[in-house]
Amino acid sequence: MAKQQIGVIGLAVMGKNLALNIESKGYSVAVYNRSREKTDEFLQEAKGKNIVGTYSIEEFVNALEKPRKILLMVKAGAPTDATIEQLKPHLEKGDIVIDGGNTYFKDTQRRNKELAELGIHFIGTGVSGGEEGALKGPSIMPGGQKEAHELVRPIFEAIAAKVDGEPCTTYIGPDGAGHYVKMVHNGIEYGDMQLIAEAYFLLKHVLGMDAAELHEVFADWNKGELNSYLIEITADIFTKIDEETGKPLVDVILDKAGQKGTGKWTSQNALDLGVPLPIITESVFARFISAMKDERVKASKVLAGPAVKPFEGDRGHFIEAVRRALYMSKICSYAQGFAQMKAASEEYNWNLRYGDIAMIFRGGCIIRAQFLQKIKEAYDRDPALSNLLLDPYFKDIVERYQDALREIVATAAMRGIPVPGFASALAYYDSYRTAVLPANLIQAQRDYFGAHTYERVDKEGIFHTEWLK
Amino acid sequence: MAKQQIGVIGLAVMGKNLALNIESKGYSVAVYNRSREKTDEFLQEAKGKNIVGTYSIEEFVNALEKPRKILLMVKAGAPTDATIEQLKPHLEKGDIVIDGGNTYFKDTQRRNKELAELGIHFIGTGVSGGEEGALKGPSIMPGGQKEAHELVRPIFEAIAAKVDGEPCTTYIGPDGAGHYVKMVHNGIEYGDMQLIAEAYFLLKHVLGMDAAELHEVFADWNKGELNSYLIEITADIFTKIDEETGKPLVDVILDKAGQKGTGKWTSQNALDLGVPLPIITESVFARFISAMKDERVKASKVLAGPAVKPFEGDRGHFIEAVRRALYMSKICSYAQGFAQMKAASEEYNWNLRYGDIAMIFRGGCIIRAQFLQKIKEAYDRDPALSNLLLDPYFKDIVERYQDALREIVATAAMRGIPVPGFASALAYYDSYRTAVLPANLIQAQRDYFGAHTYERVDKEGIFHTEWLK
Repeated sequence: MAKQQIGVIGLAVMGKNLALNIESKGYSVAVYNRSREKTDEFLQEAKGKNIVGTYSIEEFVNALEKPRKILLMVKAGAPTDATIEQLKPHLEKGDIVIDGGNTYFKDTQRRNKELAELGIHFIGTGVSGGEEGALKGPSIMPGGQKEAHELVRPIFEAIAAKVDGEPCTTYIGPDGAGHYVKMVHNGIEYGDMQLIAEAYFLLKHVLGMDAAELHEVFADWNKGELNSYLIEITADIFTKIDEETGKPLVDVILDKAGQKGTGKWTSQNALDLGVPLPIITESVFARFISAMKDERVKASKVLAGPAVKPFEGDRGHFIEAVRRALYMSKICSYAQGFAQMKAASEEYNWNLRYGDIAMIFRGGCIIRAQFLQKIKEAYDRDPALSNLLLDPYFKDIVERYQDALREIVATAAMRGIPVPGFASALAYYDSYRTAVLPANLIQAQRDYFGAHTYERVDKEGIFHTEWLK
Repeated sequence: MAKQQIGVIGLAVMGKNLALNIESKGYSVAVYNRSREKTDEFLQEAKGKNIVGTYSIEEFVNALEKPRKILLMVKAGAPTDATIEQLKPHLEKGDIVIDGGNTYFKDTQRRNKELAELGIHFIGTGVSGGEEGALKGPSIMPGGQKEAHELVRPIFEAIAAKVDGEPCTTYIGPDGAGHYVKMVHNGIEYGDMQLIAEAYFLLKHVLGMDAAELHEVFADWNKGELNSYLIEITADIFTKIDEETGKPLVDVILDKAGQKGTGKWTSQNALDLGVPLPIITESVFARFISAMKDERVKASKVLAGPAVKPFEGDRGHFIEAVRRALYMSKICSYAQGFAQMKAASEEYNWNLRYGDIAMIFRGGCIIRAQFLQKIKEAYDRDPALSNLLLDPYFKDIVERYQDALREIVATAAMRGIPVPGFASALAYYDSYRTAVLPANLIQAQRDYFGAHTYERVDKEGIFHTEWLK
C-alpha cells in the first residue's frame, strides 16, 4: 500500500481544516484522533478525498512515508506532551514532528531539544487565521531545524494564504521562534483591537454617533492607510442588526471581553526581556477591567466623573483627529512589538528577519493590513533598525499625527473617557524621544534608601552617596 | 553549654544587621556563614554581644535550643534551596526554618510544602527597610504555619519598627503569603517612585523649577496628606550638592533606572490573576525605557515633539494640581495593589487581612506613609471592600481631585511630557467607574473572526452570530 505524504493528529476543527487544506493542494494525508468516532466522522465528511483514517498511533505512523511528517493539532500543554510520548517509540531518526497548536514558546524550545537528542526534528509553528484560515489559507510561522523546515516548506507554501502571489509563510528561526512570533502577533492583535475600541468609544460618546454613522466612518477609514482586516470587520459589525430586538447587534453585546492568554504571555515575556510594551499590556488590562462588569456597574453609581459639556467643535476635524490618533498609536504598538521580537531574537539567538515576518502577517492572519508593507520596507531600508519610529516613513507620520493624538488624549482626559491605549501610546512616544527622563530622581531615591548606586552624566563609573551626611 | 535562642545563616549586610537587631532585644544568637572569614569578621564586629559563631551546619544546628529557629538570609533561588538541603539531615520535627530573603512566593509555597512533609515548619517572611531597617527596625511580613509563627512572633515583634508603639509585623497567612505581600509592597514602591518622578518632571519642565525650588515644594507636600518616607527623602535629595561640580547632585545622576525584578514579578502575577495593574506595570516599563539611554538620545535627535509655548498660567495653581494628581494617582495605585492582594488571597486561600497589612506598612518599609492609616480605616469600615476607591474617604478625595489629574494629563499630553503613571491612573479611574465600556465591540470582533461567542445585555446565555450572512 502506498504511504501517505503527511499525517495529522487531532481532528478538532483546526486539525480537520488543515488536513482538508493540505489534501486540496494534492497531498495525501493520514489522520488519527484519540477517539475513533471523530476519525470516522471526519472520513465521512472527507469522502472521496485522498485522506486515510488510522485507529492507533502505530497504524498512523506506519501509514506515512519516510521521513515522516506529522502535524499535531492537539491541545497545547500536557496533551501535546502526551501525544509526543506516544509517538516516540514509533519514530525514526529524521522524522519531523510539527506542533501547530497555540503553544507557549518555551515548551517548544524544550520539546525541540528533547526530540533532537533522539534525532527527531521538531517544528513548532504558529498558525493564524482561525478556522476559516486553516481551511482556505492561514499565515504560517514555523520554527525549528532549518533542514527539517525545507522538507515541509512546499506543503506550508501550498496551504498558506497568498498576497500578491507570495505565500504567507517563511522559516522564522530555530526552536521556539515560530511560536514566539505567533505569540507577539496575538499581542499586537490585542493592541489593535483595544485601539479600535477606544476610537469607537470616542466617536460614540463625544459625537454621539450611532452604529450606522460608525459604519460609515470605519468603512471610510478602511479605504486609507488604516486599511486592514480588523477595520474592515469593524465597519461590517456596525451594519449587523439583531433579529430579536431590531437594534444594532453591537449594542446588545455585553461589554465583557474574554481572552485566551496569549496577550498575557506577550506582556509577561516583555517584562522578562526588559522591553517596554505598554500598549499591548494596557490592552490586556483593559480586557480584565471589562470583565469586572458587576463591580463597574456598582462603581458607576458611586464614583462621579467630570462635568462635561456637549461637543461644540468641528465634527469632521474630530473624526480625522481620532483616525490620526488611531494610526499613530497603532504604529507605536507595532514599534513595541517588533522591538520585543528584536530583543527576543538576541536573547534566544534566533536571527529573526523582521521584514519577512511583516510580510507573512500581510495575509491569512487577524492583523493583516496594508500597513505591514510599510514595516517590510522599513526593514529593507535598515535590517538592524532598533525601533520602527526611527524609520523615515513612520517618523514622518508620527511627527505629523502627534498633534492629533495629543488632542485626543487631552480631550478624553477632560471628558472622562478612558483611553488607556492612546494615552500609553503617547507616553511611550514622548518617553522614547526624550533624551533626559526623570529617572535620575529614581536612581537618587534607590541610592538613598538602598545603596543601589547610580551612574553620572559626566563620567563613567558606579557611584554611591552617603545621603544623610 | 547553653543553647542559643535563634540562629542566622548568611552574614551579608542584611543577615548581620538582623542578627545585631535580634541580639539587641535580649536574644542569644548563633550565626553561620559558608565562608569562615565572614563569620570571624562579624564576630569581631559583634564582640561582647551575645552572639556565637559556628563553622559547620552541624555545629550551627547543635548550638540552637529546640524547637530550633533558623533565619536564612542567603541569596534567593538556588542558594536558598542548597542551604535548606544542607540543613535537612540535622533538623527535627517542629524546628522552624525562616526565609527572610527576597524570595518569589511560589518558591516559598513549594518549600513550605516540602518541609511540612518532614514535619518541619517553614516561614517565608518579607523584610522591608533595607540595611538600616534590618538593624533598627524593619517591617516584617511573615507567612507560613500559624503555630510556628506564634513561636517566633515575640522575636519579630521585638525587632520590628514601631509606629505609635505597635510593631510593624503581623502574621500574614499560610505558605507564600508573606513573600507575596512583600512583592506587592515592592510593586507599590515602583508606582510611588514613578509618580513622584513624573511630578518632579512636570514641575521642572513646565515651571522650570530648580533643585532648591523643588526641595521647597516636596518639603511642603510632606507636611500634608502626601506625608511619607519617599516624599521626605525626595525633598532631602534636592538639597544635596555634588562636591565635584557644585551642582545639585540629582542633576548629575544619570537617568537610567535600575531594578531588581520584584516590580516585574508583581506585574506578571497580576497578569496571571487577571487583575488590572496598569500603574505599577507602567512604572516598570518606564524604568525599562529609562535604561535605553543611548537609544533615547539618538531618538531625541530624530523625533520632534510638539511646539510648546512658555507656561503662562498660575504657578501656585499648577503646583497644587500636580500635588492633587500625585495623590489621586497614588490612591489609584494602592487600590490596584490591594485589589491584587485580594485576588491572590482568594486564589491561594490566604485569608489576608488588608487593614493589618496597611498597618504594618506604616513603619520600617519604603512605602511608609501617613496615608496607610486611611487604608486601614477603610478596611475597618468594610473588611470585604472590593476596591479602595469605593471607600468614602477615598471616593471623596478622587472625586475632588480628578479635575486636577485631568488637567495635568491633558497639559502633559499637549506639552510632550511623558506621564505614563498619571495617564494610566486616570484611564483606570475612568474605566473602573464606567458601567459600559467599548468591550462589546471587542467581543463582536472576536466572535466575527474566531467564533469566540459573546454574552448579551438583555438576557443570560452564550451567543454566536454568523456575521457574514
